[in-house]
Amino acid sequence: MFRKDLIKPDGRRLHLYSRKPISDGIIATNPPHDPVKPNPHMRWHPLRGEWVIYASHRQDRTFLPPKEYSPLAVTKSMDFPTELPAGDYEMAVFENLFPALSLGAEGMVQSSVETQAGVGVCEVVVFTQDPDASLGALSVEEVKLVLQVLADRTKEIGANPQVKYVLPFENRGVEVGVTLHHPHGQIYSYPFVPPVPAKMLEMQLKHFEKNGRTLLQDFTATEVNDGRRIIANEKTAKAYLPACARYAYETWVVPDRPVAWLYDLNEDELMDLAKTLKTVLMKFDKMWDRPFPYLLTLFQAPTDGAAHPAAHAHFQIFPAYRTQGKLKYLAGTELGGGIFVNDSYPEVKAAELQAVEVKF
Amino acid sequence: MFRKDLIKPDGRRLHLYSRKPISDGIIATNPPHDPVKPNPHMRWHPLRGEWVIYASHRQDRTFLPPKEYSPLAVTKSMDFPTELPAGDYEMAVFENLFPALSLGAEGMVQSSVETQAGVGVCEVVVFTQDPDASLGALSVEEVKLVLQVLADRTKEIGANPQVKYVLPFENRGVEVGVTLHHPHGQIYSYPFVPPVPAKMLEMQLKHFEKNGRTLLQDFTATEVNDGRRIIANEKTAKAYLPACARYAYETWVVPDRPVAWLYDLNEDELMDLAKTLKTVLMKFDKMWDRPFPYLLTLFQAPTDGAAHPAAHAHFQIFPAYRTQGKLKYLAGTELGGGIFVNDSYPEVKAAELQAVEVKF
Repeated sequence: MFRKDLIKPDGRRLHLYSRKPISDGIIATNPPHDPVKPNPHMRWHPLRGEWVIYASHRQDRTFLPPKEYSPLAVTKSMDFPTELPAGDYEMAVFENLFPALSLGAEGMVQSSVETQAGVGVCEVVVFTQDPDASLGALSVEEVKLVLQVLADRTKEIGANPQVKYVLPFENRGVEVGVTLHHPHGQIYSYPFVPPVPAKMLEMQLKHFEKNGRTLLQDFTATEVNDGRRIIANEKTAKAYLPACARYAYETWVVPDRPVAWLYDLNEDELMDLAKTLKTVLMKFDKMWDRPFPYLLTLFQAPTDGAAHPAAHAHFQIFPAYRTQGKLKYLAGTELGGGIFVNDSYPEVKAAELQAVEVKF
Repeated sequence: MFRKDLIKPDGRRLHLYSRKPISDGIIATNPPHDPVKPNPHMRWHPLRGEWVIYASHRQDRTFLPPKEYSPLAVTKSMDFPTELPAGDYEMAVFENLFPALSLGAEGMVQSSVETQAGVGVCEVVVFTQDPDASLGALSVEEVKLVLQVLADRTKEIGANPQVKYVLPFENRGVEVGVTLHHPHGQIYSYPFVPPVPAKMLEMQLKHFEKNGRTLLQDFTATEVNDGRRIIANEKTAKAYLPACARYAYETWVVPDRPVAWLYDLNEDELMDLAKTLKTVLMKFDKMWDRPFPYLLTLFQAPTDGAAHPAAHAHFQIFPAYRTQGKLKYLAGTELGGGIFVNDSYPEVKAAELQAVEVKF
């Protein structure tokens, strides 16, 4: 993997990635914009025991621009610069112009609840220069590069002592609120471990201390043994609908080896993980012959300097539809209670996906 | 409040409520339907440490029927019976034909994760016979009746030793997935305390043990003192956007007196609470001159037989829009991390609502 670091005219960092050496002379660009001075702060929600991020500058963010004005398109003319310069790179990562959290946040806010500066890094990860591609449509080598880039970003962002957790994700489809269609993901990083990964870490730690293996090692072994919900089965990585799926088509993509962070996988393991992920995403899109909207999240261990032998890095994918044409809405029981109702069995949904044949 | 209990032809319970005596001779009805044998089960999600409910019979539930076939319309002819009989009642509550949880659940399910029968009660609460009304458009006396009905249902459902938590809520608007337009809410009840109320109870208990007052007593006093986010201020009840709002227009409606369950409020307090709730809902609808979609949840104490002096019953309302025409989508940080990003300040949004004048 080759990487080139540049600085945009407006001061934001840009990282170009490729499987081949990247030419010198690429000039970083950004779209013209009014000055953005992100100064997010956080307020403590005493009833839920969690932080809420306030980022009012995000109101002005780009909202479903027509394709000809996509800020993620490659710059064709310096008269109309975008976030992506022209050049022979494959992927680009840059600091979000409208970050929810910012290393420069000062957070001097008076409030009746406890407040803190909204310190963190938010990056945009552009998967390809092709605006009509998608993560699942990339070649398996390109998907592997995506994994390597996410690993590299986690390592670099997580090395900042202010950052305790790095969360890469992809929101795909207008159904889940995507505002830019060019294939891309995002990385949020937080000055604390957010509640969802914190809870999962707690559960994993209990399991590890009791059994000496990670929870996902045992869970995956059980899924492989059962077989009914397996979607992809590579030598060192598996994909399956978990027996406890909350979303109808919820799928987990899990490397066999329990590494805390993606960057601890070797080349062969990354390739297997790329194959399983690509298999899942291709099946999603082929099943109804249309782009399948989802939220994809990469869960890794905190970047707090500690070792986390109980944490097992993996992807969880939450598709938006519960059946063709019917979205899953989160309502009273999910948002009010925190309990999901799934009106289908993962065994049945897995069979639907198993029946979809994909080749690459 | 007057109440009449009936049994539908298909065996489900129907409770009619009114401020005046209800005539004898009302015949309970239900729409014709294939036999429904709800047998939901729950599976343990070991990674998140929570239950997931599986209710596959819910796939067949009514989905946005044309208005002339609404199952919540009042029965006009016994040739076309609906869920609501004709009669001189004001509100009706009945067992959901497609319940997510059922007292009859047997739950004999083999799975690689721990399972349990999906035991509980799910009811539909029809606020009015008028299909074109809304909760906020009801008279304040009718809103008070709604509160009394929710209190009565909580007491009755919660008296079942299998039920540990009763969660009344209203999903309003197609934006939040509403499948029937007739004004109604729902009640879910669970054989355990769900994660969100459990966490809030934990936080409230810590506060109560330290301060001798409920968290919401102190929080509300601070909001009243600050004043910037107050939406309604009655003698014994308040409504405000909390300083830590996660949703742009998130509003809490809180009785001053810290009762654990709504049924512990007296008549005057219920009337004040009805006034604050109605004020909020009327402002929502008038602000953009259109029905304002939201999720409204009533949080009370568990119904586990214990006293809960730290629990302070109140409503939380989560509106779907973050600004006019722009929905708030829950995506990577909210669903993956459990951390909300609010791109507006509750002080600003409260000022918008304060500027809307309503009278009743």
